Amino acid sequence: MSDVISENKKNFKFTCTHQDPNCAARAGEIETPHGKIPTPIFMPVGTHGAIKALPPSELVDMDAKIILSNTYHLHLTPGSDLIKKAGGLHKFMNWNGPILTDSGGFQVFSLQQKSIKEEGATFKGPKGKDVLLSPETSIEIQQNLGSDIMMAFDECIPYPATREYTKKSMDRTHRWLDRCVKSWTNPKQSLFGIIQGSTFDDLRKECAEQVIERDLPGIAIGGVSVGEGPELMEKAVSYTAPLLPKDKPRYVMGVGNPEDLLMIWENGIDMSDCIIPTKFARGGTLFTNRGKIRIRHKNYRRDFYPIDPNCSCYTCKNFTRSYVKHLFDSNEILGQILATIHNIQFYLDLSKRAREAIIAGKFLQFKKSFLDGYQNN
Amino acid sequence: MSDVISENKKNFKFTCTHQDPNCAARAGEIETPHGKIPTPIFMPVGTHGAIKALPPSELVDMDAKIILSNTYHLHLTPGSDLIKKAGGLHKFMNWNGPILTDSGGFQVFSLQQKSIKEEGATFKGPKGKDVLLSPETSIEIQQNLGSDIMMAFDECIPYPATREYTKKSMDRTHRWLDRCVKSWTNPKQSLFGIIQGSTFDDLRKECAEQVIERDLPGIAIGGVSVGEGPELMEKAVSYTAPLLPKDKPRYVMGVGNPEDLLMIWENGIDMSDCIIPTKFARGGTLFTNRGKIRIRHKNYRRDFYPIDPNCSCYTCKNFTRSYVKHLFDSNEILGQILATIHNIQFYLDLSKRAREAIIAGKFLQFKKSFLDGYQNN
Repeated sequence: MSDVISENKKNFKFTCTHQDPNCAARAGEIETPHGKIPTPIFMPVGTHGAIKALPPSELVDMDAKIILSNTYHLHLTPGSDLIKKAGGLHKFMNWNGPILTDSGGFQVFSLQQKSIKEEGATFKGPKGKDVLLSPETSIEIQQNLGSDIMMAFDECIPYPATREYTKKSMDRTHRWLDRCVKSWTNPKQSLFGIIQGSTFDDLRKECAEQVIERDLPGIAIGGVSVGEGPELMEKAVSYTAPLLPKDKPRYVMGVGNPEDLLMIWENGIDMSDCIIPTKFARGGTLFTNRGKIRIRHKNYRRDFYPIDPNCSCYTCKNFTRSYVKHLFDSNEILGQILATIHNIQFYLDLSKRAREAIIAGKFLQFKKSFLDGYQNN
Repeated sequence: MSDVISENKKNFKFTCTHQDPNCAARAGEIETPHGKIPTPIFMPVGTHGAIKALPPSELVDMDAKIILSNTYHLHLTPGSDLIKKAGGLHKFMNWNGPILTDSGGFQVFSLQQKSIKEEGATFKGPKGKDVLLSPETSIEIQQNLGSDIMMAFDECIPYPATREYTKKSMDRTHRWLDRCVKSWTNPKQSLFGIIQGSTFDDLRKECAEQVIERDLPGIAIGGVSVGEGPELMEKAVSYTAPLLPKDKPRYVMGVGNPEDLLMIWENGIDMSDCIIPTKFARGGTLFTNRGKIRIRHKNYRRDFYPIDPNCSCYTCKNFTRSYVKHLFDSNEILGQILATIHNIQFYLDLSKRAREAIIAGKFLQFKKSFLDGYQNN
């Protein structure tokens, strides 16, 4: 075992405290240098070191436990050297809770102009300049940022992918993983490995074995939510999760809708992140226990109820649908702010409720009851 | 005296508590049904029933005393009937402090497509439909909104204006004023008259006499900050203010820069409003005691000081110039939010400091000391 891995065990702990007796759902706690994280947990996304349209004070008020930020974007602007000089990302953005940084591997999937070689991935940056992300640079950037949890640099491949390409890519991703582990020097930060393998069970299995072998602090399932649809996503998660050790946190990356979250939690996943609540909020789509609503719709003009009468967020406690609709109709930024507060709180509350249900051994009832009320419109 | 005016005196009081011995600057207090307002006071502008880019909780935290909202804009969206149905503007926007509504008279100045007749002003609305604002409709809308202070419907004329047009317009504005008084039925709301007269002293004087004669709860100086420049603005204010009764609040509309505020306060003005702090904030221009800074400038990239080290706002207490610059560089809405919080707090603090200086009988020293440090760049 490398020194950094053994030293890291003092700074990072995961305890599975409750196992639902009727499904794989589980509750637990992660300890990081910046605080404890009850699981299952949803992580709001702060791509550029800020949750879009959310005042940071609200993030504290709504009891968020951990946020995600992006290596690739912070590397471009303002640069991780600058953030290091500022005292790290926690201090730079004034968020004192845990932070997870992705590795840039998702951008290998999502950005168009790139070339992937053994060395790493080269992107066309916004000013036309080449930007290289490699296992070494990704970890260097993440160590400059000082996140509590770093992700290994991988290739997140699109759906559909051929078996041949998937195999070739995952083998390279495993070589990249070893280079990430080698670059990892700060034991206060934890490195998670990522399982790829697209929709091929045997490749998922091989990936899982490879990642487990490295004995890293946590394990992620990547390469889902890349266009494969909910059935194949569930198939990949439900196949892969049981292969993983029980004593490490499991993170499904980039998921998802409330229905998806319930699915991954049922399969024993502990962590997830997604831009859906923030992105939808800015477009005026709000989550409620009865389904999504599009707040610009004329029906809400004279609707003096809160967005969700059962929600305890700042927006729902203080404003009506009518007012929020008016703000969107008037292109007021405050509309996006109030909608974002609501959607993030909705996601955080959903994970809190799921956790309570798991602790009570009633996750499946909770899931059924939620989905019965929730109309996926 | 009309019933509503005499009944209103129970709901609205102004007391001039301190007169600076060395200039006309004065401090006082306005009482409204939604709370007391220490004067001089700056009123942040919430055109559509929301201060642009400002979470309402911050407005409370920064101890704002009164805000302004716009009749014309709220008439278009969502309509004052709806706001009345919602329980009034205070309840609709969840702001429990005093609100002043303008009358739409400024839009007679600022909007291009309109025709002005004895009846009122007809605008081309955003969907091509004609929108009539008259003394009667303006007061009806403002009474639907339920603002604490309503403004009389006037014609705010541009600079330069001929003497002939100014005279013709102000005579009509006085006839409109009588129609406003006649339409005013709710004594919990107070109606302020507005002095026009452009740059003509004798017409300003005639206007002042006409407005004073109506014995309204407060008096505004309008038609300044319409392109006439700081010298003519000061000339109009310093000429008009001494004509006004000491026992009524004086409001200069739409002003302005920090230098302008110091000028009007020196002349015994109690209230003002301006979009400058919010509009500049969204563009990345921030006010400090050493002058304005453009936060996107490369100099701030590695500047880990607060926007203004002497400012106690949420932004300055929690974030650096470097971070705020990064947010603007990344087009993050949070940049606009943090900049807006700072600029409004700066304006509110400036009026608070001016008030304290007046109470100490040292306004002129305060003004000199502020301007010595403030570089108008």
